[in-house]
Amino acid sequence: MFRPEIKVLDCTVRDGGLMNKWQFSNDFVKAVYDANTEAGIDYMEIGYLSSEKSFSREEFGPWKFCSEKDIQKAIGNGERKIKLSAMADIGRIAYDDIPVCSESSLDMIRVACYVHQVDKAVDLAHHCMDKGYETTINLMAVSTVGPRDLNEALEDLNKSRVPVIYLVDSFGAFYSEDIDALSQKYMERLPGKTIGIHTHNNQQLAFANTISSIINGINYLDASLYGIGRGAGNCPLELLLSFLKNPKFNVEPLIAVVEKHILPLREKIDWGYFIPYMISGVLNQHPRAAMALMESEKKNDLLEFYRQMTNTPEMI
Amino acid sequence: MFRPEIKVLDCTVRDGGLMNKWQFSNDFVKAVYDANTEAGIDYMEIGYLSSEKSFSREEFGPWKFCSEKDIQKAIGNGERKIKLSAMADIGRIAYDDIPVCSESSLDMIRVACYVHQVDKAVDLAHHCMDKGYETTINLMAVSTVGPRDLNEALEDLNKSRVPVIYLVDSFGAFYSEDIDALSQKYMERLPGKTIGIHTHNNQQLAFANTISSIINGINYLDASLYGIGRGAGNCPLELLLSFLKNPKFNVEPLIAVVEKHILPLREKIDWGYFIPYMISGVLNQHPRAAMALMESEKKNDLLEFYRQMTNTPEMI
Repeated sequence: MFRPEIKVLDCTVRDGGLMNKWQFSNDFVKAVYDANTEAGIDYMEIGYLSSEKSFSREEFGPWKFCSEKDIQKAIGNGERKIKLSAMADIGRIAYDDIPVCSESSLDMIRVACYVHQVDKAVDLAHHCMDKGYETTINLMAVSTVGPRDLNEALEDLNKSRVPVIYLVDSFGAFYSEDIDALSQKYMERLPGKTIGIHTHNNQQLAFANTISSIINGINYLDASLYGIGRGAGNCPLELLLSFLKNPKFNVEPLIAVVEKHILPLREKIDWGYFIPYMISGVLNQHPRAAMALMESEKKNDLLEFYRQMTNTPEMI
Repeated sequence: MFRPEIKVLDCTVRDGGLMNKWQFSNDFVKAVYDANTEAGIDYMEIGYLSSEKSFSREEFGPWKFCSEKDIQKAIGNGERKIKLSAMADIGRIAYDDIPVCSESSLDMIRVACYVHQVDKAVDLAHHCMDKGYETTINLMAVSTVGPRDLNEALEDLNKSRVPVIYLVDSFGAFYSEDIDALSQKYMERLPGKTIGIHTHNNQQLAFANTISSIINGINYLDASLYGIGRGAGNCPLELLLSFLKNPKFNVEPLIAVVEKHILPLREKIDWGYFIPYMISGVLNQHPRAAMALMESEKKNDLLEFYRQMTNTPEMI
């Protein structure tokens, strides 16, 4: 489907970093950057923008902070054909720590928030816009939000100057019919704004739901190489690019970087379709319990986990 | 989605057997049978019906043949709450080798055929019906069939007595829009017949496409435990059952059998989402080249494989 308004954002380093505390080498980040550039991807999200007062450099890698120095060390400061993005969580970045856009390699800052944080998100996003950045607000975990709260949040977002609003399926709980209904709601209640989508793959629906959102008119699409991301991961970028028929895209460099850099990482980190993530998705739960299980020696104790999550008493 | 007409068929042993030449132990088959029964699955496809003149027992396990003796050895001959099915390929089973239904544990025979074999498939299916079996015809690889040939095949199937016709995405090449269009075509051109769906997961769309087909009115649904099946595998049964809201279904026994029997098998056999299968799916190709690669030492040489499959010349 060739629609020139469609923009693809690679979140390999940012969402994938949730699995390794953003401890990616500069070589890895450079390889992903080069592949994305060659593939014609529009944006690469290189990590989170966080204050060093909030997180320790000893525990977290450079892509938790996205300092200008670290970005330049990894990918230089030459001309870029791809825009760079970083995500900011409410309360984890001090306004004064955000440089003005003209002094930063970053082109876009995406503000992630839960529904009760919308006012703070709008304030931070406006601050970023005033510093010269492209800005989005990514409203997370809407699968747990009732219609009254969601409508109120969308009303607040509609009143804001923020031009791009993301529909986010944080828990991988949505079916295509949910995506249809929510896409239409976002488009109706946010006239004149661009809508984006960010999916999780707990039920193997991340790519399918992204396609559904495209059919409904959503134009900003998140994906990651081989689907790397928290828990079950995201929409696989190589699948999305093969689906989109825009002639500017080229999937071959993505295949190459998966071979050279993602497969070796996959030997060390378990993202993708696993039953614990499937269970948390089906139950519309945060993946944290499933992630804790996957990191424990009980990772294959599926029945016990299912019973815990559904409060089914053990048979005696 | 609760629709009483929906029937779920587990093809774990039959389609999964394409990955290990049907060398499943009786314990494995019994465990899958018990789990399916407890989960409320309607049909279990236990393998292929083949003549021993066509295939060697030394090379292939019992579920390539589905002899009555082998079935009873694995799962006994007591009362069954689940119907048993076997698949028959054109030309690989002699009519005389098919017992009458009253002397068989099998309730259903599904005839698989390519579009040029439809006449032979109808003949074999009618033969099976006359012997007392429920019967379906599964028209394979329709992603490679032009509309004139497909319409002619559907016309022949429409004239037959066979009550259930399957839409089969053998190569995992279809998007939901293809499923929408084909489901509607099958329903229109086969009035009064029941339509089934069998998907492959090359593009992580097997479950999503099964959902699309349900929305379009398809009622016979194939799936397998943890998606086991040829290459990228099939629609995961545990996902499908979690989606269907029919109170007769229970996902817990499926979780239990995945833990005990499927995870250990997954250590030995690579089915699921791998880039070679993704490439063959995107290119609408038979998975045989991808399967050969996956069994070779070059399984991670993704770029070379992509270039071979797309005939892209090597850079010098």
